[in-house]
Amino acid sequence: MTALQAPSAAPELLVHCAELVRPSLREAVGRLHPWMAEMAAYSFGWCEVGGAPTATPGGKGVRQALAVLGARAAGADGRAGIPAAVAVELVHTFSLLHDDIMDGDATRRRRPAVWKAYGTGPAVLAGDALFALAVETLAVVPQGARAVRLLSAALADLVRGQADDLLFTGRPCTGPDRVTVEEYRAMAEAKTGALLGCACALGAVLGGADEDMAGVLDRAGRHLGIAFQLVDDVLGIWGDPAVTGKPAGGDLREHKKTYPVLAALDSPAARALPELLHSPARAQEAAKLMEAVGGRTAALAEARTHTATARTLLTQTPLAAGAAEDLLTVLDFLVGREL
Amino acid sequence: MTALQAPSAAPELLVHCAELVRPSLREAVGRLHPWMAEMAAYSFGWCEVGGAPTATPGGKGVRQALAVLGARAAGADGRAGIPAAVAVELVHTFSLLHDDIMDGDATRRRRPAVWKAYGTGPAVLAGDALFALAVETLAVVPQGARAVRLLSAALADLVRGQADDLLFTGRPCTGPDRVTVEEYRAMAEAKTGALLGCACALGAVLGGADEDMAGVLDRAGRHLGIAFQLVDDVLGIWGDPAVTGKPAGGDLREHKKTYPVLAALDSPAARALPELLHSPARAQEAAKLMEAVGGRTAALAEARTHTATARTLLTQTPLAAGAAEDLLTVLDFLVGREL
Repeated sequence: MTALQAPSAAPELLVHCAELVRPSLREAVGRLHPWMAEMAAYSFGWCEVGGAPTATPGGKGVRQALAVLGARAAGADGRAGIPAAVAVELVHTFSLLHDDIMDGDATRRRRPAVWKAYGTGPAVLAGDALFALAVETLAVVPQGARAVRLLSAALADLVRGQADDLLFTGRPCTGPDRVTVEEYRAMAEAKTGALLGCACALGAVLGGADEDMAGVLDRAGRHLGIAFQLVDDVLGIWGDPAVTGKPAGGDLREHKKTYPVLAALDSPAARALPELLHSPARAQEAAKLMEAVGGRTAALAEARTHTATARTLLTQTPLAAGAAEDLLTVLDFLVGREL
Repeated sequence: MTALQAPSAAPELLVHCAELVRPSLREAVGRLHPWMAEMAAYSFGWCEVGGAPTATPGGKGVRQALAVLGARAAGADGRAGIPAAVAVELVHTFSLLHDDIMDGDATRRRRPAVWKAYGTGPAVLAGDALFALAVETLAVVPQGARAVRLLSAALADLVRGQADDLLFTGRPCTGPDRVTVEEYRAMAEAKTGALLGCACALGAVLGGADEDMAGVLDRAGRHLGIAFQLVDDVLGIWGDPAVTGKPAGGDLREHKKTYPVLAALDSPAARALPELLHSPARAQEAAKLMEAVGGRTAALAEARTHTATARTLLTQTPLAAGAAEDLLTVLDFLVGREL
């Protein structure tokens, strides 16, 4: 695939990248213990419980696309980014499996979460298997050590972000111990931004990028990740469950300290909000109040800031022809749903 | 430390290696998110829940010792093996954290298991944090790519072995679907042998060993691991809980298909055994019958075979002066409890 032949509309671009990566991803998953391979295949939407083939919609495949486009940004063929794409998709799936256990989320992409379908213990182990497979995939490429360093740094961030996200749920809504929007930003960057940044940078490194270019792509991916998390937070409160596939008000019931919540709590007009947030039955009232005091608007404005920064990084860096445009297409697709 | 200065008695040798490794291990753990660092420190016996310092006995530190001795076997200073030692101790602790969740084991080293003390979700995440830290530790050494390849292969084996161990519990005691001793051996090698072999080989690689020497040390460690697992199985059934720190009959109640069970089931005189094994209250009767029909003897004989193979591999390979003796000292210590 050359840059110029790549389709430019986002869905086609994502499908194109997914098709490029799929054989290697399937080959990697096929090397797992059959039980682990089934849980992985279920997660990717390739099979049902029991192993019967199916084609339920999996993830959007944004991370694998960023890895392929990262390689192209460095002037290489998109195929050079395939091991990076496989590794980040495996890490993403590992983190979904384990996060659903930690968050008690019983549903993922309109199907039972892996821990619900297969049990908690097997889901923990399947996550571990995907994690190990991701590391193995990168360790055998020619730039293995550098690639594994990038991935393990992203993994450390991922864990750090998830730890903060879990700890935030136990912190109060008001007073000196409340979660600040700065803490939220650091959490979102670690939990969501690090792996998107890693996907871009890792693909670029496998495509021959120098430290500078890999660094810029990493930062662009991180800002994109924060913006995506903000949009996801907005959808988690005000989105249509039929579209998002997540139960309405789920984040509120889990006491997630998302940006819209934090921004709304900062408003003097939101004095009744802490009480509403502690009453699961009043989630809709809470959502209305948060919208009225500007929580939704503030979150979307913050998302726009990070999208703009990512855009600037991608347009002001000399990337291979067509690659910046395609990266921007993915960016618009990922955060454009509400912006 | 030179080979000749090393103490030769096993406890002193293990303490010596642990002291050599501890500063780097503590430094690595100190880089984790504070919450994750506390769970890691609790696992290592450095602190109580809440973080108050303590010095409860941690593990024996066999894996870190093998890594240090592996480096010395390659003719290097033991210190060259420290990153390998840190990585294998982190991986071992990660696997204990996750295995205790999967097996429902509430106690570890006479204290509540991490998932009991901190909750299942946090324990899953702490395991992930240790896993990522192990990879990160190796990725930055000069032989990073080769080291990470060895570690990720051991991790894949670890997961495969644990998957089989879990699946074996659901398989019948008799008939064509019963677990065979050959399947057991492959499971024990993957679950226990792979990381011991990796510890030796990884230390050797960091000490400058060639593929041949690393391969021999890996194989010796794998046989040692199988022997250790066999002895552990025997202790799990007939050991004194006051010494083993594990509840009496725990493995039997969990329907673990350990070698003594499989060997006893092969005896025509054990016709009553399947029924006893399905009755948790009759674990003592089952243990007595298994001993009478030779299950215990067969397991220990099998352990001796693997110990002998490991011994032959270590003595017939030209290793640096003193290193083979020290490796044999650790071997005798690890499996000698019952042999």
